[in-house]
Amino acid sequence: MYSEQGLYSISVCFSPLSYPLYQKHDSLVVITDIFRATTAMVAAMQNGVKSIIPVAQISESQEYKAKGYIVAGERDGKTLDCADFGNSPFNFLQPHLRGETIVMNTTNGTQAIYTAAKGNNRVAIGAFTNLDAVAKYAASQQKDLLIFCAGWKNRFSLEDSLFAGALTQKLIEDHPGIFHTSCDSAIASADLWKLAQKDPAAYIEKAAHRHRLRKLGLDDVIHYCLSMNLTNAVPILEGIHLVKA
Amino acid sequence: MYSEQGLYSISVCFSPLSYPLYQKHDSLVVITDIFRATTAMVAAMQNGVKSIIPVAQISESQEYKAKGYIVAGERDGKTLDCADFGNSPFNFLQPHLRGETIVMNTTNGTQAIYTAAKGNNRVAIGAFTNLDAVAKYAASQQKDLLIFCAGWKNRFSLEDSLFAGALTQKLIEDHPGIFHTSCDSAIASADLWKLAQKDPAAYIEKAAHRHRLRKLGLDDVIHYCLSMNLTNAVPILEGIHLVKA
Repeated sequence: MYSEQGLYSISVCFSPLSYPLYQKHDSLVVITDIFRATTAMVAAMQNGVKSIIPVAQISESQEYKAKGYIVAGERDGKTLDCADFGNSPFNFLQPHLRGETIVMNTTNGTQAIYTAAKGNNRVAIGAFTNLDAVAKYAASQQKDLLIFCAGWKNRFSLEDSLFAGALTQKLIEDHPGIFHTSCDSAIASADLWKLAQKDPAAYIEKAAHRHRLRKLGLDDVIHYCLSMNLTNAVPILEGIHLVKA
Repeated sequence: MYSEQGLYSISVCFSPLSYPLYQKHDSLVVITDIFRATTAMVAAMQNGVKSIIPVAQISESQEYKAKGYIVAGERDGKTLDCADFGNSPFNFLQPHLRGETIVMNTTNGTQAIYTAAKGNNRVAIGAFTNLDAVAKYAASQQKDLLIFCAGWKNRFSLEDSLFAGALTQKLIEDHPGIFHTSCDSAIASADLWKLAQKDPAAYIEKAAHRHRLRKLGLDDVIHYCLSMNLTNAVPILEGIHLVKA
């Protein structure tokens, strides 16, 4: 598990605040924000959405809306006035979205995506719903890997870290000699995943902030966001668009 | 374990970088830097040292030395020119130090201590070597508790997080109805501790950065720093002095 041998390193960054300490060049950065941004992005690609343009400012969403784009976004659990729908993954599975481009307003997620792209890094989007697919994609890239957790208001978040652990474990177990890690946060994440993997939903609901999740009105998507391998779709960043790899 | 009921909350901050997100007022902050600063401070109190003045700048150490103080400190594994000895816990156990005041130069640790003291917080020093004693002290304080990991160059560090998990677990198990946590990093730490507690030294050596530890020349103190409950001494901050509680 804790191989220090291997061509490419795996690191895990627990929050955007820590990103400058972990950033690399010419690497693959897999961004995850399980509740709910990256799970929604993966759902969109699964559904055949052509591309997603992530934006952070409400004014950007308004400008795209004025140009006729489909717009998704929320603040504090309420759909933005200019948006067609909120950020629940279920919204991105609607059949009429196939082939369309969606402008998606996320706060943490958007900034993480564009920050990660600097330094000639490739950026991919990970969630439990595409875990195996993103692992396969990572293994194909022949690059060091940084798993970048969007976290919760710049804090460590259990669900994002569990995803990081699941991806770390899978890559090291399935690709011996290719991936290695000596990163404390990658090791901790993989060990937490060992405790959670039999039933991630039960672990998250037991361990974390049921309180927080409920307060955020996430009850309806917890199960979906913690479902494994619903799709082979891996969103990757091309310019300002997330597209299917 | 994950009680959301209880008079006082437990939070865990994984690195100084994240401290502003976790800081509280009128709380108890337990600072830990297992390799080696806080383990050395605990050893000093165990040995009967009267007080420790933590400093961060070499110039401060030099000034104290000129005034006749006993000075400890290192940079990059080398004892400071102005210092009487380096920061290995073993140095602080020397019999002739009993009753003395030692000026100790640490980089991360010192800043953490004085930062934590702001906001009318009480500051105590934790290590595996005084785990039960620091838990008892925390339980006596009737305050919210923040466990502040010094980390490794502002990054998450496995050994400090394990200590945070050990303390969290002990307080919640031994004081039901008194302490609770809904902090993701406290929960993750306590779960990691479950994996490690049977043999912390084996876990750390397996999991972490044997590479890093070796590079740092810590081979000789790993076992000592991961030994449990060698003393009842709890260093607390009074003004600029760490003294035995």
